[in-house]
Amino acid sequence: MAYQTLEKVNTIPWQERPDGNTNVIWRYSDNPIIERDAIPSSNSIFNSAVVPFEDGYAGVFRCDNKAVQMNIFAGFSKDGLNWDINHDPISFQEGNTSMIDSDYKYDPRVTFIEDRYWITWCNGYHGPTIGIGYTFDFKEFFQCENAFLPFNRNGVLFPEKIDGKYAMLSRPSDNGHTPFGDIYISYSPDMKYWGEHRCVMKASPFEDSAWQCTKIGAGSVPILVDEGWLMFYHGVINTCNGFRYSMGAAILDKDQPDQVKYRTQPYLISPQTPYECVGDVPNVVFPCASLHSIEEDKVAIYYGAADTVTALAFGRISEIVQFTKENSL
Amino acid sequence: MAYQTLEKVNTIPWQERPDGNTNVIWRYSDNPIIERDAIPSSNSIFNSAVVPFEDGYAGVFRCDNKAVQMNIFAGFSKDGLNWDINHDPISFQEGNTSMIDSDYKYDPRVTFIEDRYWITWCNGYHGPTIGIGYTFDFKEFFQCENAFLPFNRNGVLFPEKIDGKYAMLSRPSDNGHTPFGDIYISYSPDMKYWGEHRCVMKASPFEDSAWQCTKIGAGSVPILVDEGWLMFYHGVINTCNGFRYSMGAAILDKDQPDQVKYRTQPYLISPQTPYECVGDVPNVVFPCASLHSIEEDKVAIYYGAADTVTALAFGRISEIVQFTKENSL
Amino acid sequence: MAYQTLEKVNTIPWQERPDGNTNVIWRYSDNPIIERDAIPSSNSIFNSAVVPFEDGYAGVFRCDNKAVQMNIFAGFSKDGLNWDINHDPISFQEGNTSMIDSDYKYDPRVTFIEDRYWITWCNGYHGPTIGIGYTFDFKEFFQCENAFLPFNRNGVLFPEKIDGKYAMLSRPSDNGHTPFGDIYISYSPDMKYWGEHRCVMKASPFEDSAWQCTKIGAGSVPILVDEGWLMFYHGVINTCNGFRYSMGAAILDKDQPDQVKYRTQPYLISPQTPYECVGDVPNVVFPCASLHSIEEDKVAIYYGAADTVTALAFGRISEIVQFTKENSL
Amino acid sequence: MAYQTLEKVNTIPWQERPDGNTNVIWRYSDNPIIERDAIPSSNSIFNSAVVPFEDGYAGVFRCDNKAVQMNIFAGFSKDGLNWDINHDPISFQEGNTSMIDSDYKYDPRVTFIEDRYWITWCNGYHGPTIGIGYTFDFKEFFQCENAFLPFNRNGVLFPEKIDGKYAMLSRPSDNGHTPFGDIYISYSPDMKYWGEHRCVMKASPFEDSAWQCTKIGAGSVPILVDEGWLMFYHGVINTCNGFRYSMGAAILDKDQPDQVKYRTQPYLISPQTPYECVGDVPNVVFPCASLHSIEEDKVAIYYGAADTVTALAFGRISEIVQFTKENSL
Amino acid sequence: MAYQTLEKVNTIPWQERPDGNTNVIWRYSDNPIIERDAIPSSNSIFNSAVVPFEDGYAGVFRCDNKAVQMNIFAGFSKDGLNWDINHDPISFQEGNTSMIDSDYKYDPRVTFIEDRYWITWCNGYHGPTIGIGYTFDFKEFFQCENAFLPFNRNGVLFPEKIDGKYAMLSRPSDNGHTPFGDIYISYSPDMKYWGEHRCVMKASPFEDSAWQCTKIGAGSVPILVDEGWLMFYHGVINTCNGFRYSMGAAILDKDQPDQVKYRTQPYLISPQTPYECVGDVPNVVFPCASLHSIEEDKVAIYYGAADTVTALAFGRISEIVQFTKENSL
Amino acid sequence: MAYQTLEKVNTIPWQERPDGNTNVIWRYSDNPIIERDAIPSSNSIFNSAVVPFEDGYAGVFRCDNKAVQMNIFAGFSKDGLNWDINHDPISFQEGNTSMIDSDYKYDPRVTFIEDRYWITWCNGYHGPTIGIGYTFDFKEFFQCENAFLPFNRNGVLFPEKIDGKYAMLSRPSDNGHTPFGDIYISYSPDMKYWGEHRCVMKASPFEDSAWQCTKIGAGSVPILVDEGWLMFYHGVINTCNGFRYSMGAAILDKDQPDQVKYRTQPYLISPQTPYECVGDVPNVVFPCASLHSIEEDKVAIYYGAADTVTALAFGRISEIVQFTKENSL
Repeated sequence: MAYQTLEKVNTIPWQERPDGNTNVIWRYSDNPIIERDAIPSSNSIFNSAVVPFEDGYAGVFRCDNKAVQMNIFAGFSKDGLNWDINHDPISFQEGNTSMIDSDYKYDPRVTFIEDRYWITWCNGYHGPTIGIGYTFDFKEFFQCENAFLPFNRNGVLFPEKIDGKYAMLSRPSDNGHTPFGDIYISYSPDMKYWGEHRCVMKASPFEDSAWQCTKIGAGSVPILVDEGWLMFYHGVINTCNGFRYSMGAAILDKDQPDQVKYRTQPYLISPQTPYECVGDVPNVVFPCASLHSIEEDKVAIYYGAADTVTALAFGRISEIVQFTKENSL
Repeated sequence: MAYQTLEKVNTIPWQERPDGNTNVIWRYSDNPIIERDAIPSSNSIFNSAVVPFEDGYAGVFRCDNKAVQMNIFAGFSKDGLNWDINHDPISFQEGNTSMIDSDYKYDPRVTFIEDRYWITWCNGYHGPTIGIGYTFDFKEFFQCENAFLPFNRNGVLFPEKIDGKYAMLSRPSDNGHTPFGDIYISYSPDMKYWGEHRCVMKASPFEDSAWQCTKIGAGSVPILVDEGWLMFYHGVINTCNGFRYSMGAAILDKDQPDQVKYRTQPYLISPQTPYECVGDVPNVVFPCASLHSIEEDKVAIYYGAADTVTALAFGRISEIVQFTKENSL
Repeated sequence: MAYQTLEKVNTIPWQERPDGNTNVIWRYSDNPIIERDAIPSSNSIFNSAVVPFEDGYAGVFRCDNKAVQMNIFAGFSKDGLNWDINHDPISFQEGNTSMIDSDYKYDPRVTFIEDRYWITWCNGYHGPTIGIGYTFDFKEFFQCENAFLPFNRNGVLFPEKIDGKYAMLSRPSDNGHTPFGDIYISYSPDMKYWGEHRCVMKASPFEDSAWQCTKIGAGSVPILVDEGWLMFYHGVINTCNGFRYSMGAAILDKDQPDQVKYRTQPYLISPQTPYECVGDVPNVVFPCASLHSIEEDKVAIYYGAADTVTALAFGRISEIVQFTKENSL
Repeated sequence: MAYQTLEKVNTIPWQERPDGNTNVIWRYSDNPIIERDAIPSSNSIFNSAVVPFEDGYAGVFRCDNKAVQMNIFAGFSKDGLNWDINHDPISFQEGNTSMIDSDYKYDPRVTFIEDRYWITWCNGYHGPTIGIGYTFDFKEFFQCENAFLPFNRNGVLFPEKIDGKYAMLSRPSDNGHTPFGDIYISYSPDMKYWGEHRCVMKASPFEDSAWQCTKIGAGSVPILVDEGWLMFYHGVINTCNGFRYSMGAAILDKDQPDQVKYRTQPYLISPQTPYECVGDVPNVVFPCASLHSIEEDKVAIYYGAADTVTALAFGRISEIVQFTKENSL
Repeated sequence: MAYQTLEKVNTIPWQERPDGNTNVIWRYSDNPIIERDAIPSSNSIFNSAVVPFEDGYAGVFRCDNKAVQMNIFAGFSKDGLNWDINHDPISFQEGNTSMIDSDYKYDPRVTFIEDRYWITWCNGYHGPTIGIGYTFDFKEFFQCENAFLPFNRNGVLFPEKIDGKYAMLSRPSDNGHTPFGDIYISYSPDMKYWGEHRCVMKASPFEDSAWQCTKIGAGSVPILVDEGWLMFYHGVINTCNGFRYSMGAAILDKDQPDQVKYRTQPYLISPQTPYECVGDVPNVVFPCASLHSIEEDKVAIYYGAADTVTALAFGRISEIVQFTKENSL
Repeated sequence: MAYQTLEKVNTIPWQERPDGNTNVIWRYSDNPIIERDAIPSSNSIFNSAVVPFEDGYAGVFRCDNKAVQMNIFAGFSKDGLNWDINHDPISFQEGNTSMIDSDYKYDPRVTFIEDRYWITWCNGYHGPTIGIGYTFDFKEFFQCENAFLPFNRNGVLFPEKIDGKYAMLSRPSDNGHTPFGDIYISYSPDMKYWGEHRCVMKASPFEDSAWQCTKIGAGSVPILVDEGWLMFYHGVINTCNGFRYSMGAAILDKDQPDQVKYRTQPYLISPQTPYECVGDVPNVVFPCASLHSIEEDKVAIYYGAADTVTALAFGRISEIVQFTKENSL
């Protein structure tokens, strides 16, 4: 089971809730943890994914270079806070296909399933679609068939097979700044052919929860808790000054994850700090990964801020679940 | 007469013009006066209205909650600076109608006329239109018929009847981020049926005054001065990065308030401070209320900043009138 | 009672249903009844209104001139088929106001109530809104206050007061080629001040009835039948080649006309003939008036075709009511 | 082999090229072959598919009803010209899934593969995507998993498995009047899970072939000829009066059908006749099916005209192939 | 003087005004004079220019081929009605430059000045701009420097130098379906460098003359009459079904042609016949040339219809001048 | 020769590269050098041009006033850092024309050629186009013919004649927030008539260099170096929150400046500091001028920041050239 490995990881990044703070989620006091120029070529490092790896952590990072070309890079950390990111982007070998075209790669997620680390990202193949790759060691990487036809974004794998099949959340899109977007789930017997597409959750009516009324997309890899799959996702509102991205949580049914059991009506975090409000794309909070310990009742959520830097927020899993149930849309 | 009550109010919020500042309007040094999270549920508190009440002040506040649902809340203050805002939104009883539907409420204004405090706001009824309510005590509130068909925003009542009828400024709109907008006046014999609609002032040509070239809307309740009705309003320019909201002043004819006598070509305040430039909607200065003392020649203007917080600015009424006359469009 | 006068009119325009035609509504075989150049100045004559008058019929016609300026003209007919339309547009005197500005006039409707003929139209006052006027003799015309603030179109009066008040259907709009639109009702004690605005019926979901999924607007003056107010209206679908306008029927509650009892899911007529498909604006069927005889169970519906000419269609009232009930959305 | 059955069909619909006509494709002289009201409920019948069946032909027809709801209907013909279309839409049973949701169905194609007739169509599941079903007898129909996530249109199956897998052309779309669109191919081992998505051909540069410069989509089931797979497709140009749809031909490599060998720079048919230029959506020629006889060197192409009626055109396969090779983009 | 040559041309195409027709301009009874497929490769022939040449006429024709590629072709006629158009497009040699790039050519005009025939057209050079060429014999053609930077359309030369300089009307545009457009004049000492750009006339306010409220563009070469330069131009209105193109006339000052003396408020011709209303782009009347005889008081106007065919209309010059003066905007 | 004068200027503004900074361009530590309210009337001062003048520097500054009207003002400085800007805008006399209309002026550039200082700017004449003027002393200014028809922006003159003619870079535009834009070059024998228009460089494909994928425009006056003309330019990317403007460098061929030899794939500076990210238009870096010394291998680049203030950046010319060559697109 994938998350057995977590037991040995006794220290995920953590900082206790500040005094006087009553929010269910709180920000790391030294945010951002990764600055925009953390590697020589980078314009910005954000919307990135981390997992436990060996005696520390590994990650796949979106680093846009100074030509604002988007690519993904591997990185390593002992503590999840201080990261060494490779100066060269990931180079993929052929996985289950020889067609590994890629005009660009961005917004990666990483999921450990059974015996390897699966990476999904937004892959440029005649427009954005979901790229898939895997690695066993974060040194050699193998690229597989794209999961879907264009246009798609925000593909997130479940950390276990469901009913014997791989399961992936994604958001069908168009080829521009998509002004709509709902979360779907699809299944595959073999990581090559995908089907059984189901709608999971939609952008909410403006009156019900405006921060997620324009579009939504899956964020971090779902976490299995008693109530089902706990998932952090982003929601977007279209203001008269552009899109604003915030973060919420949802709990999907354990066995039928196209069924939403709970979903936060309020956001968990919205852009409020300078590093979230000011940057290449102002007012963006965009979660892509989390580290958690069920035993310690902790979760550390990694999120991109203002499409420029990478930040961290913390919470107690039990409190988040309770909050999601009590404030469900 | 409504504003007789002001005489006994010998202290409106006030701070003298800073040394070296030559602007006709200056900001309060401790802005913002209301933070975005001043009540537990709030994401943002802005675009709000205040009036003299008993031995202090009362107000109606737009507090968006963390689901970014818009509603209006009552609040009280001794000094107009420190506010106690109720944690629950205003609950309306039936006023002159039983049809008090409301999908959402935002951008309130409050006007004392004859015997009660009238509240107008942007009311969600198949899209935005002008909601009307009243209270005698800021405890019990009564909702009336909407003034107009959708779509409308920024309804502001005059503080006296004109020619025996209630008079209201408003801005016909569409059902989105309205890219146009002029100020109209309408009359009612009974606060139920409205007519005699007249165009008052239009967005200006780009060449004449660009900050108000996209749309304009009434802000605070007009103040009766020798020259006529002094009104603070917002103007919008559509930049390549979205709408920017600034504040100007206009003086309408006392007896025929659809006649504009003067109107500032320059803005009085535009978004320049961090709390006006950074927030949920960057670059917004949006006045909704003012407190004034003719005797002391003072006005304190309350305005929303960046659709996030509430701020305060000060000026001398006589200077503002003179400035408006000398810099009229 | 307004429609008492109809009893003496024993011959409304009529043509029996053609053999083999099974539609509930059928077209007049000599359509269009008014050609685009029926008066010397006209580019097109369409979207026009007729009523019984003296021993024949009178009407108010939208005649766009060859500068494509929109105005309304009076006309007269013995048989409702052959029309003499004045060569000069209607000149209005001041009615209940001296503010009778009008940049343009189009899409008139005519309704007899109590003692006079009321005319409503789309009036250009800082954009489209609902103009109101009246006449006793179709010689002298008096213009009243606009009913609403801009922007509005398709104002249609009920032929009787309801609960002692005038009642009008309309469609709030924007200042362009409005891509949305629902039907509302408003009331007035005096034809000057309007209020008690209620939503009556909305554009339908695409899946339910696509021909009316973009916007809808009231067409002819409602007819009182046993089931309530029978109203013909237009519905619009936005195809990739622009808007297509078709005609349906609805039955509103007699006493609470904001309640829709029945509404045709299928259209009654859609653009299918050359004069409906080809013209200044292809694919438009736009009803604005009808003549009817309850006794003879007949209705003749006047509609604009392709924004170019005026056409006529016939039906049996009882069949239309039955069809509307049996095919209700 | 699927098209063995064609040998016994010695008479596909046919009409010789008219004297003086030098075009490679010519229209049937009695077009349209199916009028818009061929069944009682229909507003329009177009974009429909036919196949040889028993001793005649069967088809699946897009019949929009008078509520302009889109659905597909079975029909039968002895000669391919005169059609009996069922008055009720196809009712699907569960095929390889119980999830057979469908908000609407339109633009069907039918392909015989191995032992059954497969139907693909544009299926409404949270927006348009590709629906799949099958029948053995055109009486009982079974619906399968949708092939892809939304949004997609114009799914066309190849009539044989390629490298042991089903192969489908489609056009990724958005959720509106998609202003872009290229043809892709995808493969499936089991008609349930799809992958190996490849771009086949794109809309052409305006300068090279303007009639197909906005978007393109597969039309009829590909025909295997010596040069490869002959396919009729539609191309769209966005004029200032909207989209105009014309028809071209392409030849794809037999074994690697994502390789385009030839593709007509000129269109084969563009909207030029009244039934193609005038209708619910003017200026549409939209091929969805063809009947052919290699032995007789004939093809009969069925196409929707003006989104209103169904028409037929003829050509010699050898001439079309030659024309496509000699006029290739 | 350029038009001396016209004296010997005693027969321009002509047909007397039909009985009962009271319009200032009337259509040729055998319109269209050039069908869409008049040469083998053509999809459409329209928006074309003609001039007196030798003992008959020559012309430059826009023939879009069946790939809908736009190019210009020379043609010849004895009577101006029956045309022999070359089957190959014009091949240009280098004129006053070696930079004769051209992605496409369309909408030509031809003007005889001093010693040669100048051709202007919409030339594809990184988007549309004004191409210039000349010929002495319609056999050899020479291409010059483009007159302007992109984006521009509808360049029309005056038939004489004005104040010693060449003068050209044009319409600055954008790189799409330009939703705006006014007519400017520019001057050149040498047909290579252009300057002294002046605005001549603008699209009219909707209220004043709606058929020309979206954009306008010069049509035929101006004709010198006593009142000044008589010019036929096109005007466009943006209906909800797209652009509709009609034709008007203007008279510019003889010596200062940036001064408009008169301009028709009504159109002269709008799309009303089947060949104007139905075609590749419905509802287009687009004049590009005229033949005239001052002595006989005749003008024959050539115009494109529905972007598909070429049509002809006639008028008396004196009547057109009188009409333009009496119906001036 | 224009830049001989530079030799006597032994001190251009300069600050050495900060320790640890490895970028080819670095910002001045006391940015911004000109605040938004540096003159009494100004709302913002940005996008401005400077040149060596007498024993110091002169400049032409864009100062938007508090009505947000755009105009250009002269200013003077001893050190290039501290500026005295005139409180009144430049008043132009007639230069080579009496037509010196100007609705507004913005984004000036200044170039010394032969005997005078030429100023180009975006001039409001029926929309934006390129205005030209000159001065000998920055006291008297003379306005010439606009270079081009509308619509155009960012006109930049070369500092020497090329092949005996003046040469200007510009960017054809539309009349709004132009969502496209490439750099062209045009030539003139006399600063009055312009021609020989050539495309120089285009916005880049998104995949190649996203920061400049929406539009580009010339910035500072080109500097002649061994490799050719070194030019700083701006590039724009359209994010989901609006346009972001960054700065790059290009080297054009010395004799054929329409040939691009090198062009930076990465940006040189993108908006990253508060004064670049927060202001009237967030996220704008917009270069308009530079001072340089070939001998000292220094360049100081003046750029507008956030459309609000003026900032300065430094670099070594040799390093910039090398970087441009090594990182060329």
